Amino acid sequence: MPRKPSVITLTTDFGETDHFVGAMKGVILSLAPEATVVDISHQVTRYDLLEGAFTIWQAYRYFPKGTVHVVVVDPGVGTRRRPILAEAGGGHRFVGPDNGVFSLVLSGPESEKAKVRELTARKYWRAEVSRTFHGRDVFAPVAGHLARGIRPSLMGPVIEDWVRLASGGAEPVRTGKHFWTGVVLKVDHFGNLVTNFRPDDFPALRNAAFSMQVGLRQVNLVVETYARIPAGEVAIVEGSSGCLEVCANQASAAAMLGVGPGAPVELTM
Amino acid sequence: MPRKPSVITLTTDFGETDHFVGAMKGVILSLAPEATVVDISHQVTRYDLLEGAFTIWQAYRYFPKGTVHVVVVDPGVGTRRRPILAEAGGGHRFVGPDNGVFSLVLSGPESEKAKVRELTARKYWRAEVSRTFHGRDVFAPVAGHLARGIRPSLMGPVIEDWVRLASGGAEPVRTGKHFWTGVVLKVDHFGNLVTNFRPDDFPALRNAAFSMQVGLRQVNLVVETYARIPAGEVAIVEGSSGCLEVCANQASAAAMLGVGPGAPVELTM
Amino acid sequence: MPRKPSVITLTTDFGETDHFVGAMKGVILSLAPEATVVDISHQVTRYDLLEGAFTIWQAYRYFPKGTVHVVVVDPGVGTRRRPILAEAGGGHRFVGPDNGVFSLVLSGPESEKAKVRELTARKYWRAEVSRTFHGRDVFAPVAGHLARGIRPSLMGPVIEDWVRLASGGAEPVRTGKHFWTGVVLKVDHFGNLVTNFRPDDFPALRNAAFSMQVGLRQVNLVVETYARIPAGEVAIVEGSSGCLEVCANQASAAAMLGVGPGAPVELTM
Repeated sequence: MPRKPSVITLTTDFGETDHFVGAMKGVILSLAPEATVVDISHQVTRYDLLEGAFTIWQAYRYFPKGTVHVVVVDPGVGTRRRPILAEAGGGHRFVGPDNGVFSLVLSGPESEKAKVRELTARKYWRAEVSRTFHGRDVFAPVAGHLARGIRPSLMGPVIEDWVRLASGGAEPVRTGKHFWTGVVLKVDHFGNLVTNFRPDDFPALRNAAFSMQVGLRQVNLVVETYARIPAGEVAIVEGSSGCLEVCANQASAAAMLGVGPGAPVELTM
Repeated sequence: MPRKPSVITLTTDFGETDHFVGAMKGVILSLAPEATVVDISHQVTRYDLLEGAFTIWQAYRYFPKGTVHVVVVDPGVGTRRRPILAEAGGGHRFVGPDNGVFSLVLSGPESEKAKVRELTARKYWRAEVSRTFHGRDVFAPVAGHLARGIRPSLMGPVIEDWVRLASGGAEPVRTGKHFWTGVVLKVDHFGNLVTNFRPDDFPALRNAAFSMQVGLRQVNLVVETYARIPAGEVAIVEGSSGCLEVCANQASAAAMLGVGPGAPVELTM
Repeated sequence: MPRKPSVITLTTDFGETDHFVGAMKGVILSLAPEATVVDISHQVTRYDLLEGAFTIWQAYRYFPKGTVHVVVVDPGVGTRRRPILAEAGGGHRFVGPDNGVFSLVLSGPESEKAKVRELTARKYWRAEVSRTFHGRDVFAPVAGHLARGIRPSLMGPVIEDWVRLASGGAEPVRTGKHFWTGVVLKVDHFGNLVTNFRPDDFPALRNAAFSMQVGLRQVNLVVETYARIPAGEVAIVEGSSGCLEVCANQASAAAMLGVGPGAPVELTM
C-alpha cells in the first residue's frame, strides 16, 4: 500500500533573493524525493521570534497530521543554543532552533502532551555542518529523515527546559476591573492590526460592549467583515486567526493609525 | 492505473508575509495529498480585480486540462457576494468569488461553452467558515474536493448572472476613422507597459504603420524584441501575452514615461 | 519499479508579480506531470548575469543528481544568442541562455567533464516560440522533456564556444606581495557582504592574520558566527557558501558600510 507523501513546511526569515531556501529544499528532496515541500513564509521579519512563532502557530493546524514543520528564525545560529524537535499540536512535528520560536505552538491546549527533544544524533545531519546555516545543515536533513520515516526517538533525548519567549504574546494582562492591556501581534499584508485578544478566551467579548484604544484612536465599532467598515473608518473585526483585529475597508489600518507590531492595545469593557 | 496527479493553481492578493497562503495549502493537501499545488502569484495588487483577472487569464492556458485554478482577490469577502466555480477555458476549472475576477477567462472564444455554478453545497467547505478568509474556508476545500474527483455538478447550481467587470479591459474603443483608445492593463516586473491592443484581434497592426501615445510620449518605433530598442528609447513590442507592450531595453518604460496601470493609450493608424 | 520523481529547479529575474513563472510551471507540468518543480529564486536583480550565476552555483549542489536547473536571466532574449543545455556539476543538467549565466557552474572542478549543447531540436520546444519569453517557450519545455527522460544528445550538438562571463567573479587578483583585490559578489537578505575570497582556495586565510578594506572600513576581526560580533561592529565570517563575508550581528553590514554588490575588497595578509 503506497504511503501518502509526507508534507514538510518551511517558515523562515531568509527572504527570497538568495539561494538559502533552494538549498534547504535540495537537501530535503535528496533524502525524501517523494516529500511535498510547502512554503509558509520566508518573509518573517529578520530575527523576529514572536512573528515566526505566530506564523507557524496560525498555519500548522491546517496541515495533515504527521506534517513536519521547519522554522528557521535563528539569530543565535552557531552558538550553543540547541537544535530541537517538538512533537506537539496533536500529531505535528516541529524542527528548529531552541530559542522560543515554538512558544505559541507549545502553549496551546493541543500541546499538553507535547514532547520536545534536543537534536543530538549527528548522523541525521549533513556531514559538514557550517556555523551559519543550520537550516541547510541540521534542520533540513532532520526533516528529510523524519519524512522518510525515521522515528523522533532516534534523533535525541527528551528535554524539559526548552526556551519559552518571555512575552509569549498569548495573553493580555488585566490591569483593572474593566481594563486589559494587550498588544499588536502582527500587521498583516492588508494593514490589519492583529491583536492578542481572542474571543474564544474572553467569551464576554462576544456579549458585552467594549472598545479598544490603539495609538491615538479609540475604536468602538465592531463589525463582522471588512466590507462593512465605512470608508475612512477603522473598526474591530474578529479575524480568521481567532484574534480581534483593528481593520479598515480596502485600506491599511496600520497606516491610518500609525502603529505597528508591538504597539499596546488597551481594552475597556 | 494510477491517475495523473491533479494540479491546483493559486492566484491571490495575499502577499507572502503572512500564513494565509500556507493555510490554504494545508487545507488542500489534507483533502488531496497527491495534488500538485502551484503558485501563480500572490502579489496581485490588493483588491485589484482587473489585475487578478489578467494574471489568471495569461497563466491558465499553459496548464494541463483539468487543472483547478483558485483565484482570491476578494474585497467583498463575508458579504452576500457568491462563491463560484466556472468550467471554462476549454477544460479548466476556476474557483473564487463572484466579483468579476474571472471576466477575462470567461470572455474568450475558448469559453463559449463555459458553465458557471454558485457554490452552495457546504459539505465541501470547512466545517467552520470565517467571515474574512474564504480562501481557506471555502475555495481551498472546494479545490481539494475537485482534485479528489468530486464532480462540479454536486457543488451547486448553474447560474447565468455571474458578475462581469464593467471594463473587461479586453477591448480598445474606436474613437475615429484612424483612432482607437485603449488602456495599460498592467506594468510588469520589468517596467513594460502591457496594453489591451492585441494584434490577433487587429490584424492591420501587423501590416500598417501606427503609433501610440502613452503619457506625453508619441511612440512610433516597433521592434521584435527588447534588445533591439536603442538605449534611452522606448518602443512597441508584441509581447509574449499577445498584447502590444511599450518597452525599453534593460530599463523601465513605466518609469521613463511616468505612467502606470489604467493609463490611456491612444493608437493612430 | 517506479522511478523517483524528477526535480526541476527555476532561477529567474522574473519577480513574482506576473504570470511568468506560473506559465513556465504550467508548461513543465503539462509535459512532466510527476515532476517536482522547485523555485530557487525569482528575485535575481533584473539582467544581472553574475548574480544569477552565483545563485545557481550556490544552490545546485544540494539537489539530487539528475536534477534539471533552469536559469532565465536573459536580456538578449529574441536575438541570436543561443539557447543551451549543459551537463555539468557532477550529474546535473542546466538549461538557459548562452550568455554566461552558467559561468560559475561550469568553472568548478566538478565540471571538468562538462558537456554543453546548443539547443536546436525545435520539436522539444513549444510549437509557437515568442521573441520575448523563451523561459516559457524554449527552456521550460526542454526541461519538461528532460524530466520525461529524453536524452540530451537528442536536443542539439555539443559546442565549445559557449559564453564565459569576463569577470567570472571567481578569483581575486594578487596586486602585491601582501595584497589581493577581490569583490563583493552579493549582498544577501541579511545585509552580509559576500566576497569572492574562499578559504578553500587560500588556505593561508585560515592560519595567518589578515584584514579587509571594504568601503571606508578596515575590518580585522574574524569570528566564527554572526552572534559573536559585538553590537555596532562588523567582522569577517566564513559563510555557508564557502566565501568570506563581512557581517554584523542582527544588522546589515551593507547599510553600515554603505557598499553593495561589485564593491572592491582589498585584502592584506
